[in-house]
Amino acid sequence: MRYKITLSYDGASFCGWQSQPSGGSVQDAVEAAVQKLFGCKAAVVGSGRTDAGVHALAQVAHFDSEKVLPLKNVVGGLNAYLPDAVRVTEAECVDGTFDARKSVKKKTYMYIMYDGTVTPLLETRALKVDELDEVAMNRACAELVGTHDFATFKAAGSSAKTSVRTVFDAHVERKGRLYLFFITADGFLYNMVRIITAQLVKIGGGEEVDIKALMEKRDRTAAKETAPAKGLYLYRVEY
Amino acid sequence: MRYKITLSYDGASFCGWQSQPSGGSVQDAVEAAVQKLFGCKAAVVGSGRTDAGVHALAQVAHFDSEKVLPLKNVVGGLNAYLPDAVRVTEAECVDGTFDARKSVKKKTYMYIMYDGTVTPLLETRALKVDELDEVAMNRACAELVGTHDFATFKAAGSSAKTSVRTVFDAHVERKGRLYLFFITADGFLYNMVRIITAQLVKIGGGEEVDIKALMEKRDRTAAKETAPAKGLYLYRVEY
Repeated sequence: MRYKITLSYDGASFCGWQSQPSGGSVQDAVEAAVQKLFGCKAAVVGSGRTDAGVHALAQVAHFDSEKVLPLKNVVGGLNAYLPDAVRVTEAECVDGTFDARKSVKKKTYMYIMYDGTVTPLLETRALKVDELDEVAMNRACAELVGTHDFATFKAAGSSAKTSVRTVFDAHVERKGRLYLFFITADGFLYNMVRIITAQLVKIGGGEEVDIKALMEKRDRTAAKETAPAKGLYLYRVEY
Repeated sequence: MRYKITLSYDGASFCGWQSQPSGGSVQDAVEAAVQKLFGCKAAVVGSGRTDAGVHALAQVAHFDSEKVLPLKNVVGGLNAYLPDAVRVTEAECVDGTFDARKSVKKKTYMYIMYDGTVTPLLETRALKVDELDEVAMNRACAELVGTHDFATFKAAGSSAKTSVRTVFDAHVERKGRLYLFFITADGFLYNMVRIITAQLVKIGGGEEVDIKALMEKRDRTAAKETAPAKGLYLYRVEY
């Protein structure tokens, strides 16, 4: 039986999604819980990596098990074995053609910025900024939509074959003193959202940045900054 | 020199504000930081206690020190010695007539409820609820405003001489899937906000609760439930 699970986690507690020899990853935690619940080892395949400190509201993963359990027990049982910082929110049975990584059609990330007093309640959850001009940020976001070569916004160490991606939507919503940047694409390059966010913060702060011209350079050195991981959330994965 | 400081903290990391023989309180952490920065012991007096798990966006406290430091160094220095879960956001010099506890004129608490997917990102920060009727909740809130005997909403163990308090404002704001309950008063009884919140959640969920009749009973057994500490925030203290 192939199970598809949806997960939420607080990235501050982990070294990222991807399994590490030293442990401490979300994947390690989930694989350990699956082994305890189903009584056998199983590889848990995520929709993609999230870096250390990056949160997930809805990461998706799959694993196979010969043992069949009611879906309610899969959710409850995994949560009983998982650390508090990871929760399984949903479980489904899927056929063997479903692959949490390869079947992805769209992914959405959210980046949270806030303009307010320093507080430990947001310190690991959002980026503190000064007041931003969300109209200017949304003008820049509009330039990102479409199929483009995003090499400018790709960190070194990416193993992606091509840096062409299709962005379906990108926009900033201001909610009081919070600024939420949403971006939906068929896939993301290494650190792509965080590199774009760093440019958006500059634009929102009044700097003249031509994001289209940056993109056309196809050169990472044109956009050096990377916004911190702590403000980034894997928001939705669509299949 | 008397210093007035404003603090924000994540209550999940502490056994509450009030100093405990076993340590682990916010007050203990602040007193230790003051001792390190100023080189002498000083009692740090807070505007009031917050229970274990209760957060603060703006707790206020004072302490005296013979050594005088620039205010910027007070903020930076205390933060250097404090655990990450407490931040000093402001420091002021005040005269000796100011008392963080006795001079309080108004306090505001906020209680956060959310209707959404289970997520560890909100688990220690808010109360998960089903969809609530904020119009009904606001009708009940209106009954709380004014000078009343709040004995119904006072937990055992309170040392308050009188249970009469003046509520200046009480209202619920719905923001998407969040419900924020704000209440401002000249003072609060032990667990008062959490006991009122528990009734508001029932009212928002469609139960017929006459909050005015409950209040007039002046009897805690009429309102047994207490909402968990994790959703409660000390929001503002006014002098």
